[in-house]
Amino acid sequence: MAIRIFITGGTFDKEYNMLNGELYFKDTHLQELLEKGRNTVPVEIRTLMMVDSLEMTDEDRELIAYQCEQSEEDQIVITHGTDTMSVTAQLLSERIKNKTIVLTGAMIPIKFGSSDGFFNLGSAIAFAQSLPHGVYVAMNGQYFKASNVRKNRQTGVFEALQKI
Amino acid sequence: MAIRIFITGGTFDKEYNMLNGELYFKDTHLQELLEKGRNTVPVEIRTLMMVDSLEMTDEDRELIAYQCEQSEEDQIVITHGTDTMSVTAQLLSERIKNKTIVLTGAMIPIKFGSSDGFFNLGSAIAFAQSLPHGVYVAMNGQYFKASNVRKNRQTGVFEALQKI
Amino acid sequence: MAIRIFITGGTFDKEYNMLNGELYFKDTHLQELLEKGRNTVPVEIRTLMMVDSLEMTDEDRELIAYQCEQSEEDQIVITHGTDTMSVTAQLLSERIKNKTIVLTGAMIPIKFGSSDGFFNLGSAIAFAQSLPHGVYVAMNGQYFKASNVRKNRQTGVFEALQKI
Amino acid sequence: MAIRIFITGGTFDKEYNMLNGELYFKDTHLQELLEKGRNTVPVEIRTLMMVDSLEMTDEDRELIAYQCEQSEEDQIVITHGTDTMSVTAQLLSERIKNKTIVLTGAMIPIKFGSSDGFFNLGSAIAFAQSLPHGVYVAMNGQYFKASNVRKNRQTGVFEALQKI
Repeated sequence: MAIRIFITGGTFDKEYNMLNGELYFKDTHLQELLEKGRNTVPVEIRTLMMVDSLEMTDEDRELIAYQCEQSEEDQIVITHGTDTMSVTAQLLSERIKNKTIVLTGAMIPIKFGSSDGFFNLGSAIAFAQSLPHGVYVAMNGQYFKASNVRKNRQTGVFEALQKI
Repeated sequence: MAIRIFITGGTFDKEYNMLNGELYFKDTHLQELLEKGRNTVPVEIRTLMMVDSLEMTDEDRELIAYQCEQSEEDQIVITHGTDTMSVTAQLLSERIKNKTIVLTGAMIPIKFGSSDGFFNLGSAIAFAQSLPHGVYVAMNGQYFKASNVRKNRQTGVFEALQKI
Repeated sequence: MAIRIFITGGTFDKEYNMLNGELYFKDTHLQELLEKGRNTVPVEIRTLMMVDSLEMTDEDRELIAYQCEQSEEDQIVITHGTDTMSVTAQLLSERIKNKTIVLTGAMIPIKFGSSDGFFNLGSAIAFAQSLPHGVYVAMNGQYFKASNVRKNRQTGVFEALQKI
Repeated sequence: MAIRIFITGGTFDKEYNMLNGELYFKDTHLQELLEKGRNTVPVEIRTLMMVDSLEMTDEDRELIAYQCEQSEEDQIVITHGTDTMSVTAQLLSERIKNKTIVLTGAMIPIKFGSSDGFFNLGSAIAFAQSLPHGVYVAMNGQYFKASNVRKNRQTGVFEALQKI
């Protein structure tokens, strides 16, 4: 059975617009990263939206939840902006119980040489195949349960709300 | 508890010698990759050797097995050349039963822009935290049990000996 | 005799701030680029400022002109933001007649994989050694006289005001 | 008038063969580099051969010289392996007097992150436009006359035979 990958945007997929010096979304880099990673796990990729997660609306999250519910695959990876990744994870964990859903993203755009995104994607695809049903955030080499994670805005790393 | 990382060489860590045009080993790139991945999983890194896996001897494998046995950490990642990765995995799986050991590597050196190594490392660190005790190869986004994996020399991808 | 290199900022040296998603200046990348280019031309590097060229003031340009006048070296390369590169070039060409001054920069930050900066730097250092006294802009593989160049804001490329 | 670019191979264009771990030639990277450099100089590119310069024969050099003679463009850039670059330059300088010919290459393949090739290409294109008729080697940010250059095998840098 394939892994379902939903793309929602976030720093991961941002590009540099050389005409105005701003970062923007064009296309996702998911497919080229999977080829570079020489991935052979069957995947079904769908782009749901391309938004900065600070601008993600309730309707956007409703769409993500709906797509996760409807997915035939029970292993799902979602690329997502880091700023509200834990909010979406929390919502999904309340709605979907019978699948393994892993949210991941990047602190630095893939198109920058120093991006963490390729590493995060490798870990997310691994966690989606190996963790029990539930909703998780995969960042910084770790996985966090949706109910127990936040992004530390000072350091830029994800951490558990409480040690377990 | 930390993840133990053992480095043994392989394509992963090969560099280009500009004076004679050959690939060689200098230092491992593990630490810089973990920083780039913004990894916060505690790790203990030890370089056991820096060899092409086609030149790995029985004594080299004995050393790797011994180090795995002695490791206090029960989650272990080993970077290894791909050509004989399954041989080492097989040996370790006969010797060590009470740990989760994940071998990984790269088809293209990390120093090449097109390397798969950063993706593989992300997946290996994830699998080491999430799979039950046993010995595994993590390549191509997948994990394979040590007893059921080979590298396909024609395609350069890892595959299960038999579908399970 | 060495080439004098003055750094003034611009897209060339911009970095990605992963905490707020904005581009900013930290340190120049000139030295590491010269090493990567295996440059053996003697150079004297001085950072005059680190600014976006849209924010460059008359005082900033006065400082650049003064430094060019005072420079013992008569081959000078200046890294500069592209938006007002031709303005600074024009000013310098009115003030300094006995040196070869080449302004260059980048449309995409060096830290992005797709940056043009390394190529531009190679061409600027070459033009500084081979063109007669005068002030030039070196971008897009070409050189333009200071009195006959503008950046086309629609296409992002530099072009001559009039064909010569 | 365009610059003529002749491709002959060399480290510049070498790729990594992940199936056997060896470096080999596939296609040239010239076109993608010119796009990345946002080059707007008109160019006419022709691949003459794809060889390691240690294996370049007298017939190969004869072909290069013939192509340079026949070229309508009088500004020519040749990408070439570094090991015998000065040999080819010497031959061309004896044969062709009425053109500016610049040989360049790379110590590290373009496909490696640490390659000097993009920088060298920028400098070669600049020198081809700005130097008087003659044959030159453009490496390490410098240009050398064909009659006064050698590659130092110990350090990997090009140097003048005698200071001038």
